[in-house]
Amino acid sequence: MKTASVKERLESLRKVMKKNGVSAYYINTADFHNSEYVSDYFKVREFFSGFTGSNGSLLVMQEEAGLWTDGRYFVQAEKELSGTGIDLYRMGEEGVPTIEEFIEEKLGEGDIFAFDGRTVTASKGKKFRKIAKRKGFELEIKKDLSEDIFERPAFPLSSAEVLDDSLTGESALSKIKRLRERLGKEGAYSTFISSVDDIMWLFNIRGNDVTFNPVLMSYAYITLETAYLFIQKAAVTDELKAAMDKASVLIKDYDEVNKFLKNEDFSRGDVLLDPNEVNYVSYRRIKKKAEIIEMRNPTADMKAVKNETEKANMRKIYLKDSVQLTRFIKEILDNTGRVSMTEMSVSDRLEEYRREIPEFRDLSFTTISAYAANAAMMHYAPSNENPVEIKAEHMLLVDSGGQYNGGTTDVTRTIVMGELTEEEKRCFTLTACSMLNLLNVKFLYGCTGRNLDIIARERMWNEGMDYKCGTGHGIGYILNVHEGPQNIRWKAVENEAVLEEGMAVSDEPGVYKAGKFGIRTENILLVKKGVHTDDGQFMEFENLTMVPIDDKGIDRSIMTERELSYYIAYQTEVCAALKDCLTKEEYDWVRKYAGIA
Amino acid sequence: MKTASVKERLESLRKVMKKNGVSAYYINTADFHNSEYVSDYFKVREFFSGFTGSNGSLLVMQEEAGLWTDGRYFVQAEKELSGTGIDLYRMGEEGVPTIEEFIEEKLGEGDIFAFDGRTVTASKGKKFRKIAKRKGFELEIKKDLSEDIFERPAFPLSSAEVLDDSLTGESALSKIKRLRERLGKEGAYSTFISSVDDIMWLFNIRGNDVTFNPVLMSYAYITLETAYLFIQKAAVTDELKAAMDKASVLIKDYDEVNKFLKNEDFSRGDVLLDPNEVNYVSYRRIKKKAEIIEMRNPTADMKAVKNETEKANMRKIYLKDSVQLTRFIKEILDNTGRVSMTEMSVSDRLEEYRREIPEFRDLSFTTISAYAANAAMMHYAPSNENPVEIKAEHMLLVDSGGQYNGGTTDVTRTIVMGELTEEEKRCFTLTACSMLNLLNVKFLYGCTGRNLDIIARERMWNEGMDYKCGTGHGIGYILNVHEGPQNIRWKAVENEAVLEEGMAVSDEPGVYKAGKFGIRTENILLVKKGVHTDDGQFMEFENLTMVPIDDKGIDRSIMTERELSYYIAYQTEVCAALKDCLTKEEYDWVRKYAGIA
Repeated sequence: MKTASVKERLESLRKVMKKNGVSAYYINTADFHNSEYVSDYFKVREFFSGFTGSNGSLLVMQEEAGLWTDGRYFVQAEKELSGTGIDLYRMGEEGVPTIEEFIEEKLGEGDIFAFDGRTVTASKGKKFRKIAKRKGFELEIKKDLSEDIFERPAFPLSSAEVLDDSLTGESALSKIKRLRERLGKEGAYSTFISSVDDIMWLFNIRGNDVTFNPVLMSYAYITLETAYLFIQKAAVTDELKAAMDKASVLIKDYDEVNKFLKNEDFSRGDVLLDPNEVNYVSYRRIKKKAEIIEMRNPTADMKAVKNETEKANMRKIYLKDSVQLTRFIKEILDNTGRVSMTEMSVSDRLEEYRREIPEFRDLSFTTISAYAANAAMMHYAPSNENPVEIKAEHMLLVDSGGQYNGGTTDVTRTIVMGELTEEEKRCFTLTACSMLNLLNVKFLYGCTGRNLDIIARERMWNEGMDYKCGTGHGIGYILNVHEGPQNIRWKAVENEAVLEEGMAVSDEPGVYKAGKFGIRTENILLVKKGVHTDDGQFMEFENLTMVPIDDKGIDRSIMTERELSYYIAYQTEVCAALKDCLTKEEYDWVRKYAGIA
Repeated sequence: MKTASVKERLESLRKVMKKNGVSAYYINTADFHNSEYVSDYFKVREFFSGFTGSNGSLLVMQEEAGLWTDGRYFVQAEKELSGTGIDLYRMGEEGVPTIEEFIEEKLGEGDIFAFDGRTVTASKGKKFRKIAKRKGFELEIKKDLSEDIFERPAFPLSSAEVLDDSLTGESALSKIKRLRERLGKEGAYSTFISSVDDIMWLFNIRGNDVTFNPVLMSYAYITLETAYLFIQKAAVTDELKAAMDKASVLIKDYDEVNKFLKNEDFSRGDVLLDPNEVNYVSYRRIKKKAEIIEMRNPTADMKAVKNETEKANMRKIYLKDSVQLTRFIKEILDNTGRVSMTEMSVSDRLEEYRREIPEFRDLSFTTISAYAANAAMMHYAPSNENPVEIKAEHMLLVDSGGQYNGGTTDVTRTIVMGELTEEEKRCFTLTACSMLNLLNVKFLYGCTGRNLDIIARERMWNEGMDYKCGTGHGIGYILNVHEGPQNIRWKAVENEAVLEEGMAVSDEPGVYKAGKFGIRTENILLVKKGVHTDDGQFMEFENLTMVPIDDKGIDRSIMTERELSYYIAYQTEVCAALKDCLTKEEYDWVRKYAGIA
């Protein structure tokens, strides 16, 4: 079936649906662990729709099919879906129904709505069940109707790697102990964890199962007495056995998790789990026999707060990452007008720079190297099919990061390639001001990102501009580049998290003018304690990213006095930090580039 | 019993408790409508505790009794409770249990926990019921054990007054129609409303039952077909009858509401109600027979958005109120050093100024006239027993407002009486900057007060200072001076409300230094639409309060350029607005006072 067209694939699927009496089949983009990036094994939706974007859900019925995706992918999806007979549903646009609204409208008594429940979160599954109850149709969550049509690539597999205490700063034993204390506090006897980054953090292990994410396909079940790690047999090494033995963790086979849940005696007490992470099949198994406490994984909160060892390693790695990015920027500018460059070639070149760092493991996500108007597309990725040459004009936006033994980085700089228009310069300056204003904010303990977001956005809003994304996300430590629970966003979210000392967040405001240009400046910040006064504990940020802002983009006359002082202080701090890592020539250059020479 | 001591009163209560088998009796501070201010009829807690603060809950058991109150009242409560045998529980302090935690700890099987369920909200009642279930004790919500001990003053009563359309801008009929549309949208057949300000708004009526609040003790029950107003027989006038007739509203007796709820056939559809407003007795009655949709009263959202008529009236009334407050400030300063003044005498004088306005009805709350260090107490009220003389030094904080046919005002100005210290001047200036920064903020539609609060607080937080209260509250129209659902606060609240065009909020940052001084500057702002760009609908504020800030308190050198421009623009706008209402001499004075002469 591999070379069949999307239309043919859909026809095959429809036949299987008919055979099984299924009226509507839902295929989302997810693995069994609600991971942000999924490996090829899980790319069922792409197989049946031809749509290659990272976010999309396909709903197939006999007479029609629809694909739901978000604003980043409207153009791409339209192109890729053309001729497939699949309708595009533009999520978030007025009058466009959600998938839930759609099935509520279309399905009724006698219908069967099916999906692979291992790839759908419990929260989503419960929503579907409610609609099914209301409308009288059946839910079938255990059938993977794609199995005879989609020849899946191999299931992701890599060897388990044990991180040294010098990298983790806390033993698995100690983390498990702290987790048990949290369970006790919440009145739970045990917790079932399926988010693989939480599991990696808890057991101080890593792997290589998901591109960009150093994780292993795994589950964990921790009771007040026992800890289980479910992992593929072939991933287990002697080193892992020894480490888990030391932490009193029992290793179980990954494939047996649902059998385990079926047989486990849950009578000892409530099971805490995160319905936004645990898949619906596992959830239903537990639900049958246990009282469930639904809440965010305590491990998510614990993992988000970086300890002193992690922070110290991050500072070192961020400096090294910054040095290489700075060198890269210098090379780009040196080459301009002399050496031919494309978005893709500079992206590859930047990866080479990162690979020179001894602690390098991998990139932390696909580099966004976007030239001129391409940068207006927030999630643009360069391609070899469509090479875009970089010239001595406009701007080049580079958003990139690495996975290192010592931290995960994420940084965006917009490089000024030639003379800017007045509008470009204004927007470049406002972006820098926004980033710096947030970096320098002071706030009372208890604030969340919702309280702070306007500090970055104020400058934009004052001019009737807005960037259609959050200002910042949490970031992992040798883990996912996007990590919760904290973030910097102004819109309401479920379960907002207070900014705790040791949390890392990105600070990445920008200006995006469709068809014209895109600017983003992104640093990573650590939350730290500020002064403690009669009025309470104040908090502030420590800057980790030591890459100068391109002074050629800056119009100092539109900065406030305070912003100008932030700017000079930042550029000076960065140059001082870089000094010992650069050659004399590089250092002289960077001071000029930063506008403080 | 009137002159008995608190101790004797408690003993009498304990006897009644014993007779009824009640282990713990809970008396909170509330009427049947969860009103902010309660009339003497409802002051049961004050009678049994001797504590006169506006917020406090008393829990009486045989061997002990406790009073819970908040930080505003710790000093006062300690004094007033001394010798009564009642323990003070300082709400919010570390290690201090909440009432819920306390009864969870103290009560168990065989116990009866009782309270007058008419004075406890459904939300609170349900919390108590959960604890009772968990701990196995009984809940008794229908007994007013105080009735034979506390001789209640007369139940509040005043004649119903019908507001003209020129004041309301929308007929009751139209409001009821819009409410029914909302009910339909929420899938409800009817709504039970007990918050009296919502009822006044809905029916375009007013009264005088609660000090400062022009309301009538009332309930409303609105179905998709019928509308009932429950009101005391003696409050009904011919004018009311005619108006309600026109709006197709049936008038029922206030005292029969619970009988009505008992007999009503709720089979036609779900009842929408706000469990944070409806009392527990009414709630239980409805719950017995109806499906309840629990959410904020739709009338609260509708009432918060002022229509064009209301806004036009407010602009006029706020100007008149501002003129009188400005004249008052001039008189204070003219009198300084020549005429003897006390906190109380100037408070009375300000009331006289307000009474000169033809539309004046009443004050909107007790004037806070706080001199020097007294102003550090946020909710200080002057007293005749403790006269405080105002001299030609320090500052005088005056927080006051009026109820007018045309709006409800609330304004705070801090008047500089003599030479300020450097710290005082710095804090005065920061307060002005905070107020002005919020007044001038621009924000994307969808923001709530949580997003904006830091704009006011940023200046304080930067210096390690904080004011321990919200930055702003919603304000009613010829109604309560505090009105939801919107506010400007940084801490998370349930059911945050988006700032909609037409909402009014206060903007009142301050600095409070215990034992030294207190500064607050408060304006009232209207939310209005700003520019609409590619990036969305932007919102901004319109200023209603036209009283200058005392320029003697301002150190322009610590203002940013932007703040200075806001300041000059504000002082100039105010003087221009006042010009036509002032004499030449007054106008010359005000320009000097504002620092723009």
